[in-house]
Amino acid sequence: MSNNPRPPKGMRDFLPADMLRRQYVINIISRLFETYGYEPLQTPVMELSQTLLGKYGEDAEKLIYYAQHPHSEEQLALRYDLTVPLARAFGSNEAKLSLPFKRYQIAPVWRAERPQRGRFREFFQCDADTVGVATMEADAECLALMIDAIATLGFRDFLVKVNNRKLLTGIGLYAGLEGEPLANLYRAIDKADKIGLDGVGRDLREGGLTEATVNKITTMLGTRATGQTGFAAARTTLATLQAQLGQIAIAAEGLAELGEVVSLLEAMAVPETYFDLDFTVVRGLGYYTGTIFEAVLTSADPEERVGSIAGGGRYDDLLGLFRKTSLPTVGLSLGLERLIAIMETRQMYPPQLNRTVVQVLVTVFNDTCKPQSLSFVSALRKAGIRTEIFMGGGKLGNQLKYADRKNISLVVIIGDEEIKNNVIKVKSLFAANGERNAQPQEQELALGNAVEVISALLNNNR
Amino acid sequence: MSNNPRPPKGMRDFLPADMLRRQYVINIISRLFETYGYEPLQTPVMELSQTLLGKYGEDAEKLIYYAQHPHSEEQLALRYDLTVPLARAFGSNEAKLSLPFKRYQIAPVWRAERPQRGRFREFFQCDADTVGVATMEADAECLALMIDAIATLGFRDFLVKVNNRKLLTGIGLYAGLEGEPLANLYRAIDKADKIGLDGVGRDLREGGLTEATVNKITTMLGTRATGQTGFAAARTTLATLQAQLGQIAIAAEGLAELGEVVSLLEAMAVPETYFDLDFTVVRGLGYYTGTIFEAVLTSADPEERVGSIAGGGRYDDLLGLFRKTSLPTVGLSLGLERLIAIMETRQMYPPQLNRTVVQVLVTVFNDTCKPQSLSFVSALRKAGIRTEIFMGGGKLGNQLKYADRKNISLVVIIGDEEIKNNVIKVKSLFAANGERNAQPQEQELALGNAVEVISALLNNNR
Repeated sequence: MSNNPRPPKGMRDFLPADMLRRQYVINIISRLFETYGYEPLQTPVMELSQTLLGKYGEDAEKLIYYAQHPHSEEQLALRYDLTVPLARAFGSNEAKLSLPFKRYQIAPVWRAERPQRGRFREFFQCDADTVGVATMEADAECLALMIDAIATLGFRDFLVKVNNRKLLTGIGLYAGLEGEPLANLYRAIDKADKIGLDGVGRDLREGGLTEATVNKITTMLGTRATGQTGFAAARTTLATLQAQLGQIAIAAEGLAELGEVVSLLEAMAVPETYFDLDFTVVRGLGYYTGTIFEAVLTSADPEERVGSIAGGGRYDDLLGLFRKTSLPTVGLSLGLERLIAIMETRQMYPPQLNRTVVQVLVTVFNDTCKPQSLSFVSALRKAGIRTEIFMGGGKLGNQLKYADRKNISLVVIIGDEEIKNNVIKVKSLFAANGERNAQPQEQELALGNAVEVISALLNNNR
Repeated sequence: MSNNPRPPKGMRDFLPADMLRRQYVINIISRLFETYGYEPLQTPVMELSQTLLGKYGEDAEKLIYYAQHPHSEEQLALRYDLTVPLARAFGSNEAKLSLPFKRYQIAPVWRAERPQRGRFREFFQCDADTVGVATMEADAECLALMIDAIATLGFRDFLVKVNNRKLLTGIGLYAGLEGEPLANLYRAIDKADKIGLDGVGRDLREGGLTEATVNKITTMLGTRATGQTGFAAARTTLATLQAQLGQIAIAAEGLAELGEVVSLLEAMAVPETYFDLDFTVVRGLGYYTGTIFEAVLTSADPEERVGSIAGGGRYDDLLGLFRKTSLPTVGLSLGLERLIAIMETRQMYPPQLNRTVVQVLVTVFNDTCKPQSLSFVSALRKAGIRTEIFMGGGKLGNQLKYADRKNISLVVIIGDEEIKNNVIKVKSLFAANGERNAQPQEQELALGNAVEVISALLNNNR
């Protein structure tokens, strides 16, 4: 029928060895999301098309997948992100929810992008959002969580760069820009991570702004305290800008919000080495209204420095599309697929993270000994030890090779001799730290306490 | 824009309280799948249409959702189950996999059924399958796992009913049926759980079979050992049938396989009270080729007795649709949505399974005390305690009400007095066993070891 079977373009099968790595990362993140008080929410894969349309902008909308069945009475689409579905789900269920509503969702989304290396049409997003809090406590919590998550995964060379949309608007007003020219300014600044501040200035001049206007803008965008780092430096920087922009109400509001975020992060004892103000952060042209932030690697490897590994911000208007009045909302999104890929390249997974879930292979010596092997398998499983029985029979040597190929830590042998002596034999192919034993360790265990000993040997490693 | 927002028909949002119950069930099952040595596999939500078409039969195929994007170069469909995707994924990746390949997948599937109570268009399946083992060890393991899973969830009033397609074919041949009449026989027997064996007999007579033929069939299907239970009874029943059908090769093969399954289950010390042979089990008209089984509740409540809560069987031909030659395969599927619903009705969830992930709410006494609250929140989170800080300010009484409404176990208060005395105040709204304290317990803790004491108070309950 269908030979050369394959998944659709840009979509992937995750085999067990991949899954163990993905689950390792997802477990760390979801545990942390819950530690910060975010609750799990799950929305359907499909939404009504009208829920998604008109939310992402023209270019993004072209990437949406549509779905239907032969008797469709509804226009359906596959979710493009987890944010619009959150807004819709909040609108659908708010009678059952209380504010603030803090939720996380780790789930696939679909975008019909041109398939290319590292870019997929089905990929996971990993979001935590707070609905219903206007104050900066929610923004600061997102930043604390983002830093905690990336550090807990094992990264040390990263920076979370923070900005505020209100401040950007204020800088535009300060330079005399409003309406369309202001939108163009956002677009120009958005390229700063690729072309630098000089490049942004050049673009703005080419776009028709005067030398004086461009200088005003790039000076503001480039403001940085020198000789200090972390939160103290941030305060100095904000004070410098306040002196210049304090008269512009929206700028002053943005600066006050940033100042508040810094104070809150300090009170929460967030490590300041991972924090930076960066007024060139724009976060696309989307729905953000206040605080915006993104995390980048400070790695020397230029390939790793492309794009952000996480991002987020405040979007106080989106909920208003799904209820009478809007609700203030702020959230973060971790770039799960990028994080997983970089952790793979950098070999950041613990060695105990085996390539298989199986901890013990119980071999079958021969047909007469099989019942004893089966019975021992049940005893191991009852103790929660992840156990496989070798199926289909065959030479013991082949069964050992199977365990070795599959990276199973321990092999149990129960032959006629062992049954007679009420013992079992255990071979350790891998040590508890996940490393392969040069020479398999072999020992005989009394059947009576064999399960306990094996449990201790495995030391609950995975 | 879109007021009265809703998810598509037959699709659901799972709010946090639902999610905690679903995760509880899914965690038990996935841990058990891994304990039995099944590895996680994840396939895309969409498959090429050609992968799914022609696999499920005409009626089922009408329920498939199709998907596309404006520049589609592929015909896509949303997966209808997890079994055909497993077969496709094995075919796509077999160079990287070794046999036997044991995998599990717990994931949503889509079927455009007419929406009705308890039936959804997006629902989760929960499958474990073994590819590459022809012997009954794999079948017996599926049965052991199915019984273990349902019992571990807390059910005691269930039965896993086992049959074999080869035996059914043999009974048909014994009654002189082949080809179309044999298929009709399957269809008639498939209704036995609703209309009883008498009803099946009536249907067969109405279908044109002679009284003698019908009697032969219903006698065979109704064969049961009397005066015995469990594995011994099963052996007697199989011997009775062997005496009648032993000359029919395919029947003898089916009987031998069932006998082997019984012996293996006994060696694995599977509790026999949950095991039953039932020759009226057919499992639809699908791809099954040998062992078939389904789990039903033996509850007195007729509503709970409708349909099965789990099922599975051997399907040795399906893999052949995605590679040159087929591979023997056997698997089980737990009816996750039904299990979750029945557990809800029966209140089988542990009381500690709270309605929120949050264990501790740290209140904010006033703006001057806020930094101390924030700092304590960080300390709790560092210790892995799921903590929320009350955001947005307001009266302490309202903050306590919020915790109470949200079912948060502990509330921390840090006011001016507490800061002066280097202590914190803790109110226990819920006891560690999940029950609400009639009168909130209040105590003062020295700041120095407050995190440890709270950790002990929570006793790691969820």
